[in-house]
Amino acid sequence: MRLGYFEREGKVFAGMVNGDMVYPLRGGFGGRPEPEGYPLAALKVLAPCRPSKIVCVGLNYRDHARELGYPFPEEPVLFLKPPTTVIGPEEAIRYPAMARQVDYEAELAVVIGKIARHVRPEEAAAYILGYTCANDVTARDLQRKDGQWTRAKSFDTFCPLGPFIVTAFDPGDCTISLYLNGERRQHSSTKELIFNVAYLVSFISAVMTLYPEDVILTGTPSGVGPLKPGDSVVVEIEGIGKLRNHVVAA
Amino acid sequence: MRLGYFEREGKVFAGMVNGDMVYPLRGGFGGRPEPEGYPLAALKVLAPCRPSKIVCVGLNYRDHARELGYPFPEEPVLFLKPPTTVIGPEEAIRYPAMARQVDYEAELAVVIGKIARHVRPEEAAAYILGYTCANDVTARDLQRKDGQWTRAKSFDTFCPLGPFIVTAFDPGDCTISLYLNGERRQHSSTKELIFNVAYLVSFISAVMTLYPEDVILTGTPSGVGPLKPGDSVVVEIEGIGKLRNHVVAA
Repeated sequence: MRLGYFEREGKVFAGMVNGDMVYPLRGGFGGRPEPEGYPLAALKVLAPCRPSKIVCVGLNYRDHARELGYPFPEEPVLFLKPPTTVIGPEEAIRYPAMARQVDYEAELAVVIGKIARHVRPEEAAAYILGYTCANDVTARDLQRKDGQWTRAKSFDTFCPLGPFIVTAFDPGDCTISLYLNGERRQHSSTKELIFNVAYLVSFISAVMTLYPEDVILTGTPSGVGPLKPGDSVVVEIEGIGKLRNHVVAA
Repeated sequence: MRLGYFEREGKVFAGMVNGDMVYPLRGGFGGRPEPEGYPLAALKVLAPCRPSKIVCVGLNYRDHARELGYPFPEEPVLFLKPPTTVIGPEEAIRYPAMARQVDYEAELAVVIGKIARHVRPEEAAAYILGYTCANDVTARDLQRKDGQWTRAKSFDTFCPLGPFIVTAFDPGDCTISLYLNGERRQHSSTKELIFNVAYLVSFISAVMTLYPEDVILTGTPSGVGPLKPGDSVVVEIEGIGKLRNHVVAA
């Protein structure tokens, strides 16, 4: 099943995508689809969820850790992006005046389906609504300068998500790629994850209660690099789809 | 004016405190008070705001920086606490099983009143609803271990706020104190702030859009130290009041 948020004539609704049609869901995700749908092409596709928090994991791909010459972390290193970073497909990433180097980072995003607190890894699947593509946009110069990563990761528009939440998806071994102006720059598999999705849901839910539509960004593989105004950037995950955004000067 | 959230017979409402009475506000903060109030003593006092994000500033008191032998930062260092950390007065801080040292940090909290984006320091006052007391509870051992401060600062119950939002408050020179089991452990003044409130609202709003009821924690003065289950901890700010919480094992 593919789920998301859509806009039609100024009204926003949760919907289920079926072929070229979108069926509104009564009461949101988990609700029943209405009998009458709308052509997908006639709708604006919004970010597919509205997280109360976005919990991110640093340095979680073996290939990326090797590339940087870092030892694998013993435990996940967490950081947060505020909800104001979220944008949908085809929306603009605004390059902040405060930054000198803004990088893309292709990531697999986990979308939470129900309240999760102290969940065991073997139970994690029951708490996951589905998966989508994410771009963990990062002002690299400010990340280095601050030591803490929050400012670098928190500018408005720095968390493109989409296009849809895919519910029937096995995150064990899928290709994840990033294309900058049509050229492939990142290319790996989720089998390179140091901490897998079930472990992350368990670890994070032992720190903070996760709510429906909260998002976990699982880390980026090797090949990160800079964006500039005018660029087109696509995150593609096998079995999920393509998330495309463009960059504009702030 | 003193504002907050209250619970009566299972119903939650925004209200204005006047003497010993609380008057519900129609439509929330900024709304008109209803003519009939309730005795404050008959209500449960909740956290006085419901932030979509809590933006915190590290190392922002001169006395604390001197105590640690650190140079004053050139720019504010930001981090985030998730909304799931918020608790109200008299609620329990839960000591996580994952942590070995959990510290108190008395802080002045700024509560945002209207959408703030690229606000200039001289305009900042117009975007502030008011001020309250905060305790930026921190798992110090995990803060050191992770390098990134997020996990250490993000456990459920790690952001007591209250008791009320005080709207007529000048944050320029007020005493801020912390009492652990009745003994004073922190004692300073907001005049020791390296980056003042107007500067922080301006700086943070240039990174991320701030929404009504979002909170800025302005940093802690010298004297931080550990908590243990059974402790009673009070943050007191002159002109605002006392925020009291107790610590329980998770």
